[in-house]
Order: sequence, then C-alpha cells, then structure tokens
Amino acid sequence: MSWLARLAALVLLALAPMVHAAEAAAVASPDGKIRVSIDVDGEGHVRYSVARGTAALITPSWLGFLFTDAPKLHRNLSVTGSEARSFDETWTQPWGERTQVRNHFNELRVHIKETKPLARGFDMVFRVFDDGVGFRYEFADQPNLHTLSIAEELTQFNLAQDGTAWWVPAFEWNREEYIYNTTPIREIATAQTPLTVKLADGTHIAFHEAALVDYAGMNIARVQGTALKAVLTPSARGPKVVRAAPFTTPWRTLQISPDAAGLAMSNLILNLNEPNKLGDVSWVHPRKYVGIWWGMHLDSQSWASGVKHGATTANAFKTIDFAAANGFKGVLIEGWNLGWDGDWFADGKDFSFTQAYPDFDLPKIAAYAKLKGVHLIGHHETSANIAHYEDQMDAAFDLYAKLGIDAIKTGYVSDAGGMQARGADGKTMFEWHEGQVSSVHHLKVVTEAAKRHISIDAHEPIKDTGLRRTYPNWVSREGARGMEYNAWGAPPNPPEHESVLVFTRMLGGPMDFTPGVLSLTGKHGQQIQSTEAKQLALYVVLYSPIQMAADLPENYVKYPRSFQFIKDVPTDWSDTRVLNGEVGDYVTIARKDRAGDNWYLGAVGDEQARTSTIKLDFLDPGRSYTAEIYRDGDGADWKTNPHAVAYETRKVTSADSLTLALAPGGGQAIRFVAGPRK
Amino acid sequence: MSWLARLAALVLLALAPMVHAAEAAAVASPDGKIRVSIDVDGEGHVRYSVARGTAALITPSWLGFLFTDAPKLHRNLSVTGSEARSFDETWTQPWGERTQVRNHFNELRVHIKETKPLARGFDMVFRVFDDGVGFRYEFADQPNLHTLSIAEELTQFNLAQDGTAWWVPAFEWNREEYIYNTTPIREIATAQTPLTVKLADGTHIAFHEAALVDYAGMNIARVQGTALKAVLTPSARGPKVVRAAPFTTPWRTLQISPDAAGLAMSNLILNLNEPNKLGDVSWVHPRKYVGIWWGMHLDSQSWASGVKHGATTANAFKTIDFAAANGFKGVLIEGWNLGWDGDWFADGKDFSFTQAYPDFDLPKIAAYAKLKGVHLIGHHETSANIAHYEDQMDAAFDLYAKLGIDAIKTGYVSDAGGMQARGADGKTMFEWHEGQVSSVHHLKVVTEAAKRHISIDAHEPIKDTGLRRTYPNWVSREGARGMEYNAWGAPPNPPEHESVLVFTRMLGGPMDFTPGVLSLTGKHGQQIQSTEAKQLALYVVLYSPIQMAADLPENYVKYPRSFQFIKDVPTDWSDTRVLNGEVGDYVTIARKDRAGDNWYLGAVGDEQARTSTIKLDFLDPGRSYTAEIYRDGDGADWKTNPHAVAYETRKVTSADSLTLALAPGGGQAIRFVAGPRK
Repeated sequence: MSWLARLAALVLLALAPMVHAAEAAAVASPDGKIRVSIDVDGEGHVRYSVARGTAALITPSWLGFLFTDAPKLHRNLSVTGSEARSFDETWTQPWGERTQVRNHFNELRVHIKETKPLARGFDMVFRVFDDGVGFRYEFADQPNLHTLSIAEELTQFNLAQDGTAWWVPAFEWNREEYIYNTTPIREIATAQTPLTVKLADGTHIAFHEAALVDYAGMNIARVQGTALKAVLTPSARGPKVVRAAPFTTPWRTLQISPDAAGLAMSNLILNLNEPNKLGDVSWVHPRKYVGIWWGMHLDSQSWASGVKHGATTANAFKTIDFAAANGFKGVLIEGWNLGWDGDWFADGKDFSFTQAYPDFDLPKIAAYAKLKGVHLIGHHETSANIAHYEDQMDAAFDLYAKLGIDAIKTGYVSDAGGMQARGADGKTMFEWHEGQVSSVHHLKVVTEAAKRHISIDAHEPIKDTGLRRTYPNWVSREGARGMEYNAWGAPPNPPEHESVLVFTRMLGGPMDFTPGVLSLTGKHGQQIQSTEAKQLALYVVLYSPIQMAADLPENYVKYPRSFQFIKDVPTDWSDTRVLNGEVGDYVTIARKDRAGDNWYLGAVGDEQARTSTIKLDFLDPGRSYTAEIYRDGDGADWKTNPHAVAYETRKVTSADSLTLALAPGGGQAIRFVAGPRK
Repeated sequence: MSWLARLAALVLLALAPMVHAAEAAAVASPDGKIRVSIDVDGEGHVRYSVARGTAALITPSWLGFLFTDAPKLHRNLSVTGSEARSFDETWTQPWGERTQVRNHFNELRVHIKETKPLARGFDMVFRVFDDGVGFRYEFADQPNLHTLSIAEELTQFNLAQDGTAWWVPAFEWNREEYIYNTTPIREIATAQTPLTVKLADGTHIAFHEAALVDYAGMNIARVQGTALKAVLTPSARGPKVVRAAPFTTPWRTLQISPDAAGLAMSNLILNLNEPNKLGDVSWVHPRKYVGIWWGMHLDSQSWASGVKHGATTANAFKTIDFAAANGFKGVLIEGWNLGWDGDWFADGKDFSFTQAYPDFDLPKIAAYAKLKGVHLIGHHETSANIAHYEDQMDAAFDLYAKLGIDAIKTGYVSDAGGMQARGADGKTMFEWHEGQVSSVHHLKVVTEAAKRHISIDAHEPIKDTGLRRTYPNWVSREGARGMEYNAWGAPPNPPEHESVLVFTRMLGGPMDFTPGVLSLTGKHGQQIQSTEAKQLALYVVLYSPIQMAADLPENYVKYPRSFQFIKDVPTDWSDTRVLNGEVGDYVTIARKDRAGDNWYLGAVGDEQARTSTIKLDFLDPGRSYTAEIYRDGDGADWKTNPHAVAYETRKVTSADSLTLALAPGGGQAIRFVAGPRK
C-alpha cells in the first residue's frame, strides 16, 4: 500500500472522533494557553485531549483499567457531572532548587460512571498548570469496587505530532541505568519515564508521574505511529496493583513547554505531591560528601574483606581528615559491613546491617567523625533482597541513630531478576524495581528512617516522582547512569549524557550522580568523556542536595585550582534559572546559594564544541559581582586535551552578558561572588 | 549527539561480542546456507546467532528466563556439551496445501548449566531447515527446578539489518484483529506473531512459534534500534507460565527466504509440530459452506430472538436447500441457541450450548440437512467465558455428535477484558486470548471434540502455531481481520489486506476468512474495497480446508458466472505453488485439486493496478488444459467499477506463460481444467 493511501486512512481515523463525540467538560491553565477537554465516544470510552494554544498535543486518548478478577472498566462509561476549582499558593521548600514554589492550577473533576449493571464509578481529576497537566484516577469505596486488582491501566497518550524522543527502555535488566536513545517518536519502543519528546512544532513534553505511592510505576509503550500508552510494572502476584478503595492513582504528568529550558524550570511534579508530612525537618542537611567508593570502581579497593578492603578504620580516619580539611560535611564508606565476601550480587542474604568487618571500628570512627565535625553517611547495600533488609531495618536504623549517623545511602543492585520480597505465604517473590511492592518498600524505608531523623539516598531505586516534598528526608537517589559507568561502563557515558539527564531523569528530582572526578580516568585507565571544567559544571547542572566529590583524595591534590570550585559550591539554593538548553546538546543553569548572595553557573555540552551567550540578568540589579570562571581552556577537548582549564576572574553586573565556549565534551562553571550591596 | 557518533557507538557494540566470545557450537541447514552458532559471553550469557550465506541475520542474542519465585536463569551459564543429528522424512497431510511434506533438518542440541550454586540446567534444541530455524528450551526435572513459574522468557532476536516490517500490535484490545502496519523495523512497537520483516539485503524473515501447547503465546517487542525480544502473554495468576518439569517450550521460529514467496511456501511450522496424535481422521472433511451469518453483519438479521432472528427453522431449510442445490456440503447457522438476548457481548454467562431458541428446531433441521446431503456446522459463541463453556462442553458436544454435526465454529468475542476462566479458588480470572490458560482451553476443546469426531474452527482464537498437524480436527480458525470488517469496520479492510495476510497471519495456518461477498457491499451500503474477481481469487490465495461462501444466497443469484468459480473451487489440495509476491503488494498462488488433476490459480493485489507474467510450468508437462479465467474487466476498479469481470477460456500447456493484470483492489482467479492425458 502506498504511503499516501496510509496517510489518508490515518487522517480519516483522526477525524472520526470529532464527528462522533461532543465535549463533556474542559479546563484551561491559569494563563489560558494549555487546555484539556473531555469527551465520550460512541462506544462509551471517556477520552481526554490536550492542546496548547491552537496546537493539538494529545488527540482523544482513552482512560480505564483491566482487572484480573473483574470486567474491565473502559467502554460503556458516561460523564455524570464535573466540577472546577482554582488554586494558587506559594509554599516553602525546606531545601531544594528554590526556596519558594508557586502552586497555581485550575482543576477539573469529572464524575464517571458505567452505564452497565456493575455501575462502577470513578473520578478523573485534571490539574492544569501553566507548565503542564497532571491527572489521576480516584476511586471511592463502592459495592462493586471494594478491592481493585489491576491487570493494566489503559491510559493512552496519543501524540498529535511526530518529533524527537529521548528515552531509555523499560523491562530490560530491571534497573534504570542506560544510555539514552535519541530517536523519532515513531521509534520509541517501551520507555521508562520521564520520557521527553520535542514535537514537530517545537513543543516539548515530558511524560512522567507524581506521587508514586503504593502503586506500580508507569512505563510508556508505543502502540503504533505516535500513539503511546501506559504500561504498569508487573508483579509476581498477578495483578500489577492491588488496592482497597478508596484510593487514588499517582498523577500522570505532562510537563509542557515551548522550549527545553521550560521543562527543567517546571515545579509541576513537586506541586502535585502532598505537602511535608514530617513536620520539622531541620535535621535534614544538604551537604557535600567524600567517601571510600571510587576506589572500588577502579578496582584498587574492594567492598569485600582482604588486602584491598577499602572500609578499614585507617582509611576511614584518613577520609574523615580529608573531609574536615576541605570543608566536606559528609563521609560515605561502603563495604563496612559483613556480607560482601560471598556472591552478594546474587541475593544479598548474607548482609548484616549491624555488624562491621573486624577491621572497621564503627563506633570509634563515628566518634572521630563527630570530633572532626563530619557526618558519616551510612551504607546499606541490599542486593535488592528487601525481605532480608526489612528484617534488620529497625536494628540497623537504631544503630546508626545511636552513633549520630543521619543519612544512609541504600543500594538495590540485583543480579537475581528482581527485588526479593516475601509473599503472603512466606515464600520469596521476585518483584520489579519499579513495581508496587518496591514502592511500598521504599516508602517504608523513608518513613522508618524519618522516625530516627535519618535521610535516605537510594541507589538502584524506584524512580523519583517528587515524594521529597512529602518526605523531605528522601534527599536524593540514583536512577540513571551515574559516574561509576565512567569507571567501567562499556561504553562509558557519552559527552551528551548530562545534557540529556537534565531534561529527562532530572525532571523527576535530585540525582546522586557523584560528579567531580577531576582525574578523568576510570578503571584500567578508561578515559572519561569529559573535560576537567565540565566536572565542575556538573555540581550546578545536576541538582542534588547531597553532592559527592567522587574522586580519590590523592587526585584532588593534583588539581587544586579546579578543586577550589568543588569546595566553594553549595548544594542548597534559594533560586534556580535554566538559562538555555537543547535536549542532548547543551544546557546552562544558574543557581543562587540559599545561604548567601552568591550565584553559581554551570554549563555542559555534548561531543561538539558549543558557544552560547547568556544574559546575567538573574544577578541582583545594580550589584557588582566577581565572576570566578572555570572554563575549557584553549584547545580543550575531552579526547585529546581534557585538562586544559582556564581560570579567570571578571567583574560583572546584571547588565552584562557572557559568552560561554564549551569544548567537545566540555563545560563551564562560574562562581559569582556578590560585592557589597549599594 | 550526532548520528555519526551514535552509529560509531553501535558499531563498537556490535563488534564487542566477537572479541569476547568463542563459538561453542554451530549447525547449518541441509543446503548449507543457513547457519546457527552458539557462544557464551564474558558474563555467562548463552547466545545464538543466525546467518544466511555471508549475511548476518541475527546478531548474538541472549536466551533465558525470569521467574516469579526463583532467581533468573540468564547469566553465569556454561555450555557443557552438544550433540548434532540430521533428520529427513516425508510425511502425508490428511488434508492441506499439499499431500506430501518433506521434513528435512539438521539439529543441534546444546547442554547448558548454571555455574552458580543452583546449578540449574536446560537444553537448547535448534533445528535448521533450508527454509528457516526453530529452537526451543527443554527442561528436565531436577532438584532446583521442579516447577517453573515463568515471569518472562528472555529470548532476544537482535536483527542485524534494518528493513521493513509488517505487524499488528499486541496487548491492545485482547484480540488479533487489526489492519497491518507497514513500517521500518525501527518502528515496530510490540507486535503479535507472525511478524514479518524484509531486511535491507532483501532477505525475508517471519518470526512466529510452533506447537504452542500449555504455554503463553509469544509476542515480539522492540527494545531499541533493531533489537527485538520475546514478551510472553500475561496471566492473572502472576507467572505468565507455570509448568512442571520435564517440559519443553514451544518452538521459536524464523522462516527465512530470499523472497516473499519462499515464506509462503515454507512447511517449517508444520514440521516442528508433532505428528498426528488422533489416528484415523477420515472423519475430518474439508468442505465449502454457506450459512446464516452475513445478514447479521449487515444488520438485516440478528443473533438475538425477535423479528430479525436469523436462526429460524424456515431460514435454515432455505439455506440447506441453497447449499444442496449448489454443491456446498456445509451450513453454518449462528444465533440458534439461547443466550443472545441479554448483554452477551459482556460475559456470555447466559449462553446455553444445548438449548435452541423455540423458533429453531435443531433435530428437525439436522435431519433435513442429512436428507439433503448437507452437514450442519455447529456454533458455540462463548463471549470468552471459557469456564461457562467448559461446564457445558461435554453435553454440547454429545448433542452435536448425536445429531451428526461434525464441525463446530467456536467464538471468543469478549468485551470484558479477557477470557473468563475459573481459578484454583473457584473465582473468576480474566486471562488473555493468547495466554497459557487459553492455550490449555483451546486444546481441551479440540481433543474433546476429536473424541466425538467433531472438527473445530475457532474464531477470536489463540493464534495458529501448526497444531493441525498433531490434531487434524483443528481445521481452521480466524485470528485476523476477516470479511466481517468489510461489513462494519471503520475503516474496512484495505485493498492490500490479503496481500499482507498471506505473508503474515497465514504463515501460522489456515484462516476462515469467509470470502466470496460478490455483492461487494457491507452494512448501510459500505463499499468493500475489492473487485468481484478478487473475491474469487481469495478462495485460492487464502488457504483454508473449510471455506465459506459468505454472501447472502440472493446475492449469488445476481452473479451466476462468478458464482460458478466458487462452486467449482475445491478446498483440499495435493500441491501448492506460490508463484510470486511482495508483502502487501500482490501475490499469486497455484494449487492442485487433491481430488483430481485440475489446477487453480488466485492472484490478488493492492490499491494499485498491477501486472505480472507467470509461467505455467506447474502444470503437468505436455498436457493440455482449458483455462477458465475470471479476471478484472476493462476499467475495473474497486472504487468505481468493481463488478467489471471478464470471463475467458483459453487452451494452455505448461510451456505457456500468462500475464495477469490486476485492477486497483483487484484479483484474478483461474481454473485449469485438465484435458486427457497423452
């Protein structure tokens, strides 16, 4: 068949709904630009559509569910009513990219009921912001819906236009760590979220979810053409989700912006989460940290005991000394506890979360850290055996609390094929990292930790859906390819990696990427695809309230001038501005220190040399700043001359512009030191 | 990142395995052209690769399983040994496209064992034919593998080249009835099988499976690029498959041919199925049939009772008379049994499979049919409520057997979200049409029917994987968009539809498409996108041992000359030759009547006018034939002039060629009447 005939058929299909369905309800964003409308087609499918201005973004898309134990909820639906409301408040982040966050939306609640005998009902709630849309399903308890055993969520996302997509596959090896694909939208297969697309008309949309609580993580599969749909993460139990009514699903989110920068400026995910449930969280501390970690990835140290054991009392003392001497408030030490000597990667059942190796004197080290004004960051690698971990969790957290350890890095590396959970029958079930069982586990860890005033930084985690607003002790997590892939990844992270991350993974929330490897060298001498200046820029570009200086202490000594920026840069901000960016090409971000008047700027690019000019109008007007510039030097190139860094100082004001020249694989970092107020 | 850099990265990835893995075993096809090789990579993944000649088709692809209750079987594997054998036999089909089938392959059995403590083992068995490859997993009972609870099969199909794909989506609305997508391979999302691709070098590969017994149907998802993988059909139970060892999976099949015609000539699927287990099957009868069916799709009759009720004794008698008068041996009557008046589409729980409507005197009709030399074809629409159907199945089959009804059309239309099965706890479970529970159900129906010498023609079935070889009473099924979509489909089947079906769906086996609607008109006058001549060609092109003349009897009276071909054409063949074809464009097939010396030819095209010249060298050499030609007449076009048919008679021999001119939406049918032997 000819492509022309195919196109004609598609056009006919696209027109068909307009003929048959009348709009049942609609809602627009506060600025009037984004509009969501609801209709019911001839077969009783309730559908939503999204437009921005005159451009259709999402054509009529179905909603509904398959169940394992009941007829699907999909056709034969009617809209029985709807209500609208507006909401506008500004709330304060205890820590974050900005102090004040405005939460401003128009909401439409649509009441939906089956026209068939079961007469099941639910509400669809749409919140439309200037920067996108969130919607969710809400179920009241009712005679024919006490418990929902969800086989699949039938939410569609039918894109109205073709374009480019940045995505990583779902359901591959049970984690989130992949190099991003850059493809036409029509080449998306099944993707994890955030999934970011740039439509033909330039509109950017990032698909994700907010407030993933006691539910399966949503992935997005392409059906055909540019038609996408939700695919929930499976469970060994059968239903992907089991929930008793009343309950609400997580928010399905579309961050929408005319440019890439707008995506990274969006607060939509946080705004759709519930406010802080922990009360006073002054015990949660943004900070930088160093640790005994990179050596394991270089294979010069080991988690396991023996001659290369990294977590020794002597090494700990040295690392604490280094931290204290350079102003780092945190020290992470991995491999301190019993259990690393067997086949830990397989099932983690040998891990003790309270017993240290004999060469690691935990109480003594904790006391020494305290003496030096440094906080140990505890470490719990579970190998994804969550049943085993939960058995010891109370004792493990109590131990850390007793020793004054106020943050824990958890880990869920698994080679067994999933999270090992305990089923109702006591037997082991293998569950996905993004499944409902995992979502329950992670929140249990976070809330149990909160009781002891401990913060959590989860690696190989469930994805970030903004729950840090509700549980501010969930300070960071991994959930993408981080620095360790530069040590041993085949291939290592490409130069564009972080310019993709900002507009994909980072839309979910902070990432503990562990930047700052100034030596630019991985295992067996593998070259990191970055210039030295870019390593500095990452501290501003990749937001996390806890940031590691990941390199070995002895390497930092070799690069004292660059190291100064790492010592200077804060990790908590009163304001953030994304100055420019194109997904996978480059991005420039400026942030203001929450503890002072200084601004910081980071710019990273990709494998090409890139130049951009930015206005400094984010600076306080009329004030003078000393810009301490760390830029790629002459001839810098990640491949041939990565350590060429130029250091400059310049006086600037908000009326100035700056031209940033990034080398291939390069970046630039700037500290704007505020002069006295006029 | 630039496309060039991306390409370079991919090339590096593709080269990596060659560096690290040594071939552990290999096997070639009897003609030496197709070669499968096995290796183990550095992490202990066992991989297979497929090449044809010097062209790589499948690059190293992983094998393995995820389980819901045990660690995955994927990494840390070793090849502990292998054995090869050759096999060559010719077996006889009781009915089919050809009488004799040669089953000629070289087999490689690879013994694989985990190097980790569980030490689980399995065999991979590869059978390499001149027309493709089949492979399966075989599990012996063993201490750490008594029962397999399979969460996913990790079989990959990494295509070495880009190209074009013809596919329908999986997991959409729980059936198989879609218009085919024609896309680049990189635009496959998740597809049902058969999935057919044409690689850049012209090689055609159809991915499917053979002998789907007590296992979940396999779908094929694209991971990224041209990397594909198996995705099993889910189950409400949790594991997609539960099997006690010893057991073998279905065969994963790759039919491989330098041209499209070769795919449609392949016997690989049948050859990988086990021989006939039913013994004497002389009670299975290929035949043509008419029925009370098309009127329901036109909405001039109804399944439900009332004034439009189609299944009345009077209508049955008329239809039997029409069949007898025109030489049709079968009569199908739908809507005869109680249960059609409620919301049968929802759950089918009101269906009786033994009680007729009062206006349908089943015993009297059966007796009248017998008197007229006609066989009733029974009808069991289940609405996919398989628990309800199985409860009545014995009684229903006994009733039909008693009345001499030797074939049943079953139906599994469902609007409930799945096959309604009964779980171990007695509660309803919603299962997929292609899942393990469905595979068990269908085989139960077929084997129970066989006990009564009844044949089965399943609609909305599980896919065909060649089980007709083992159970020859499984005569046909639907499993794709059939004629009824031309009645009410929006849109109806496009002109290319059947030229796609031959190289996709039909590779699985016979399809009860129900051709022959000479009126070319659906519900409310919807035009069928076919010429009249094409309707005749479908009887040869779309193989099924039972073929319906689907139009209303009163319509056949209007087209007596074309109707003659439908009366003449047989449905059982001693030989089949696919003379030419391009997927989705056109195909020409010649078949020889199993009951005589005549040959029949069918050619169908797409929306374009097409001309091809074919050699008649399939005819017996030196023998004279009278070719009765039914071709698109001058100016024929499905849109503007569909009833223009030209009828010609010509004397031909095997030395002749014929030029076939197909109109847009057209086709051609020829009956070659053999003259006396020399």
